[in-house]
Amino acid sequence: MKAQKWSQMWLGYHRVSKDNKNWKVICNDFSKEDRVVNSAIAEFAKGIKGYFGAGITEDDGDVYVLEIIKDTSIANEGYSIKGEKSGVTLRASDENGVIYGVFAILRKLGARIRLEDICEKAAPSNPLRMMNHWDNMDGSIERGYSGESFFFENDDMYVDERTVDYARFMASVGINGIVINNVNVKGAATYLITDRFFDKVKELQDIFADYGIKLYLSINFAAPIELGGLEVCDPLDEGVIAWWQAKSKEVFEKLPGFGGYLVKADSEGRPGPFTYGRTQADGANMLADAVAPYGGIIIWRCFVYNCTQDWRDYKTDRARAGYDYFKDFDGEYHDNVILQIKNGPMDFQIREPISPLLGGLTKTNQLLEVQIAQEYTGHQIDLCYLIPMFKEVLDFRTYCSEENDTVADIVSGRTMGNKLAGMAAVINTGNDFNWTGNDLAAANLYGFGRLAYNTELSSEEIAREWVALTFDMDKASEDKLTDMLLKSREIYEKYTSPLGIGWMVTPHVHYGPSVDGYEYSRWGTYHRADHKGIGVDRSDKGTGYAQQYYEPNASAYNDPEKCPEELLLFFHHIPYTWKLKSGQTLIQYIYDSHFEGEAEAEQLAADWNSLKDVVDSEVFARVAERFELQVANAKEWRDQVNSYFFRKSDIADEKGRKIY
Amino acid sequence: MKAQKWSQMWLGYHRVSKDNKNWKVICNDFSKEDRVVNSAIAEFAKGIKGYFGAGITEDDGDVYVLEIIKDTSIANEGYSIKGEKSGVTLRASDENGVIYGVFAILRKLGARIRLEDICEKAAPSNPLRMMNHWDNMDGSIERGYSGESFFFENDDMYVDERTVDYARFMASVGINGIVINNVNVKGAATYLITDRFFDKVKELQDIFADYGIKLYLSINFAAPIELGGLEVCDPLDEGVIAWWQAKSKEVFEKLPGFGGYLVKADSEGRPGPFTYGRTQADGANMLADAVAPYGGIIIWRCFVYNCTQDWRDYKTDRARAGYDYFKDFDGEYHDNVILQIKNGPMDFQIREPISPLLGGLTKTNQLLEVQIAQEYTGHQIDLCYLIPMFKEVLDFRTYCSEENDTVADIVSGRTMGNKLAGMAAVINTGNDFNWTGNDLAAANLYGFGRLAYNTELSSEEIAREWVALTFDMDKASEDKLTDMLLKSREIYEKYTSPLGIGWMVTPHVHYGPSVDGYEYSRWGTYHRADHKGIGVDRSDKGTGYAQQYYEPNASAYNDPEKCPEELLLFFHHIPYTWKLKSGQTLIQYIYDSHFEGEAEAEQLAADWNSLKDVVDSEVFARVAERFELQVANAKEWRDQVNSYFFRKSDIADEKGRKIY
Repeated sequence: MKAQKWSQMWLGYHRVSKDNKNWKVICNDFSKEDRVVNSAIAEFAKGIKGYFGAGITEDDGDVYVLEIIKDTSIANEGYSIKGEKSGVTLRASDENGVIYGVFAILRKLGARIRLEDICEKAAPSNPLRMMNHWDNMDGSIERGYSGESFFFENDDMYVDERTVDYARFMASVGINGIVINNVNVKGAATYLITDRFFDKVKELQDIFADYGIKLYLSINFAAPIELGGLEVCDPLDEGVIAWWQAKSKEVFEKLPGFGGYLVKADSEGRPGPFTYGRTQADGANMLADAVAPYGGIIIWRCFVYNCTQDWRDYKTDRARAGYDYFKDFDGEYHDNVILQIKNGPMDFQIREPISPLLGGLTKTNQLLEVQIAQEYTGHQIDLCYLIPMFKEVLDFRTYCSEENDTVADIVSGRTMGNKLAGMAAVINTGNDFNWTGNDLAAANLYGFGRLAYNTELSSEEIAREWVALTFDMDKASEDKLTDMLLKSREIYEKYTSPLGIGWMVTPHVHYGPSVDGYEYSRWGTYHRADHKGIGVDRSDKGTGYAQQYYEPNASAYNDPEKCPEELLLFFHHIPYTWKLKSGQTLIQYIYDSHFEGEAEAEQLAADWNSLKDVVDSEVFARVAERFELQVANAKEWRDQVNSYFFRKSDIADEKGRKIY
Repeated sequence: MKAQKWSQMWLGYHRVSKDNKNWKVICNDFSKEDRVVNSAIAEFAKGIKGYFGAGITEDDGDVYVLEIIKDTSIANEGYSIKGEKSGVTLRASDENGVIYGVFAILRKLGARIRLEDICEKAAPSNPLRMMNHWDNMDGSIERGYSGESFFFENDDMYVDERTVDYARFMASVGINGIVINNVNVKGAATYLITDRFFDKVKELQDIFADYGIKLYLSINFAAPIELGGLEVCDPLDEGVIAWWQAKSKEVFEKLPGFGGYLVKADSEGRPGPFTYGRTQADGANMLADAVAPYGGIIIWRCFVYNCTQDWRDYKTDRARAGYDYFKDFDGEYHDNVILQIKNGPMDFQIREPISPLLGGLTKTNQLLEVQIAQEYTGHQIDLCYLIPMFKEVLDFRTYCSEENDTVADIVSGRTMGNKLAGMAAVINTGNDFNWTGNDLAAANLYGFGRLAYNTELSSEEIAREWVALTFDMDKASEDKLTDMLLKSREIYEKYTSPLGIGWMVTPHVHYGPSVDGYEYSRWGTYHRADHKGIGVDRSDKGTGYAQQYYEPNASAYNDPEKCPEELLLFFHHIPYTWKLKSGQTLIQYIYDSHFEGEAEAEQLAADWNSLKDVVDSEVFARVAERFELQVANAKEWRDQVNSYFFRKSDIADEKGRKIY
């Protein structure tokens, strides 16, 4: 085997059968030279070589046939695949449908499904299925846990074979848009929309285009000042408007097929329209008009809040901010603007309620943002399969309408009938050999793409697919690993912050416990624990955040008796002696869940160790090392959280376990 | 006035009189060309020019006379000055005595003392009076709050007019040794003892020598590996011994008059003898033998402790570490080794007991280390005049012998009759215009030097000298500023950590409160606060640290009833309801001291504002800005500490003040 410079993740195409009969590929109304079709056929060749040792032939005779047929009755980017003993027919209406269909066939073949049993018809749930890189041009990655950037280094861009593999991976799970640079646009990154970088961006964009992926860039709202030498970046200033129009014309001319801009404005120190007394809508619409002539879109992040809050202030509530800043302008955003909204109102904690802005807006394009980079969820050291969390978000009923009111409905466009809609993830990749630091974290990368393409898939289906494609092991081992993935989020939640309160992490780093780490900070992130209880009153007697939801959610969240217990401390300040539905007191729940979570983390490590003989030794070692760190982390969380609450509440653990 | 690039601090020589009669300088048995004498006369010229507008003349006639006489009856580096109407006579046995005598005359003249009233005889209390720079070669300064290094930048050294002024300042307060680089020696700094830097170091050393100052370097204990290509740096390895011998020969040949090495070994990740199962004495003595032929010395830091402690471990006590690691080898250190011992057993907190190693060692040269860089004492934003703290340290009776048992006795050499003894300060300078960030922080720079030279001076005498020399204002204003300085340490202590517990600071940064910031850390820094009380039991029932002292200190510290209250929480875990001698409970003391401390910080700011008309406007503005920050900091400390203990103890403030 040749030495690899990076892994192939779930596209390893490990041998599944000795049936090495060659394949013939026939195209009807597509050309094999069409750029994405061409990539699809090349991928098919890779797949059958790996799975069967077979090749593609032009000869007739004893061959299987893959017939690709253009069929305009198939949805955009959808496909229909149907097998029989002699081969498979793939129907699609566009090139992306072809490549997604090919990857679907390869998934089936990898799962040892017989040709004649292949039968699937698929259409993407979401029009936009995006990855957001937080890669900086110095090569660092904000909240990256898998090495450095594979796009940038030393304020320059590079494009190589790894970039091609990356595009393959993304296409294989249905991703059709990628923002390559960090939303915090500073320094050289401001120049990505100038001649300094157009050639390199174009080179990368061409690779992405071969895989049906549009390239997007995060932009600096202050670019008219920094690049244009203007005095202001006021979105209503004529000079600024003209500058963005001219700049966008240049961008789309230099980068034909370019997707548009992602903007983080007025957030955590970034410039934005507020500086000039303008609204978020003013900012977004001005840019939208500048890119509209070229079919471009503006993705505008809603992560706007007061990040210089006084912890003594019990009235201001960061959780309210997104809704408060954006709701009033619902309907004013132009058609090619889409608001990117984080799944929760805070910031990617292991447990948050669903953002009330999702569905709170009823006349605005909405893009759901999740984070597979495990910033608060274990840094890709701790195992935390996030798809169950994303499913909860998608399945959440907002009650924004009588039907089609789930988050999945809203971000797919079903609720409002809009075309600009979808899901985006802050990606968890870097230039590590295995792309994701922890090999098992690739399940989130794979899973997000699959889920964004088909929100009906279950967490378990996705986990099983990923396990089967990634590893070459027996069914019992697959079951075990799938089970580990499925439990992992709950385990992580147990040993970290209880019942939705969040934020008990080491400041800045966001790994490991620090119960008071964000308690007296400026970030709006408080647990308000005292001798008697813990939690933030967000009911109508508190900050009123619960009232941002539609009924019956608002009433349920408002009442500690009705509030879902996993969110109890997010919405209410609760005494330690409060009885939970289980009969445990709150304090006892804190102790129990932390002891359990730690024990379960140890069990995860033991389960992994039991797979030693069926996993590649290097993969095994890398992951085993991380499980050791996870167990240490879980112990630290258990002991710090339990000690903190014991020292504060003075209530002993009923079970008499060691609390320090 | 010409634009200055940096201030002259206390050597501003502001005009004191219109009597501009010139001076004639006569030297007996010294030559005006002697390098330090030459500097002294040049300084005298600067002084009389500033004070009087006078000059030095060779003419006789109507002139004052400064007569410098070599007098071998005067102690090393001492001086005798005696004025009469016609001038002043300065007697000294060596060149350093001459320059110190000149600065003493200038101090008197600056204080408007009449010539005929000048009369002082002085001899340095301490043979070594040193500054330790924590300057890194990239220009940064570890724990620096006054800009960047004025020695290093971009891995190179520079020497310029500012360096000369720096040497003048140091000589003016009696400093005779300076370590120019950080004790954490990494990267380029390892090469300071190689040809790469010898020329530059020599250039700097020559400037220092003009002012009677020896230059020292911090070295990397692993230099034999990093520079010499050896496999080990084991101090008993013959190759290592030979390497250091050859290297030291080279160093002293290239740098004639070089002082020696400062070593931080086996501390906070630095390499050291422990790696090879050797003792600290093995390491120090090996190096000492290598420099002995050239009159060099080894300054060996005692800051050795376990910095990967488990917070769950109530037995291990960082406070014990210095004594435990070094006491057993008392008497084994070679004569040219001196142990540098921090004033307290922890790390420069605003209140600690005196290190039991001081005087605990009775057969070893000891150098007291203090920190005027305000790492834990307000970052040169908050006013904190540290001389009262240093006085407490010097005046502390260790009971190591029947007489001459104070720390001042020990580090002066009086206790043991040793010659190698003294005081060192981690310096608070940088390349800021005013050298010390906060102009008022210069009082600590001035004060340390003066105190190291004469430990009998009171905090007030030093403060008054510094105020008079630095500012040109009326007596009432001088009194006010002096009073501000004298109160400031107590004020800082009040609004920060109570009763000696320390460490409630923001991790890493060490500015601002974070009550639990170091509570669950690896640094051995815990307060152990729970619902009932706070403090660390270091009595014979706890870690036994109190027993490292001689009697009667050991018994006093061991008993909470006898323990000095300002150290109560350092030595004991005390219930919040404990009655202090004032009648306050412990918790009420915490509240009261924090409210008082904050109010007093506001008063300091108000006092400074009242000096607006008598202080240079730029100085006023710089300091006023810092007082604003100090008040904000004091509020944050007050509120976080009070909230933390109220939330934990559930005991209300008797006075009903606002606690969040």
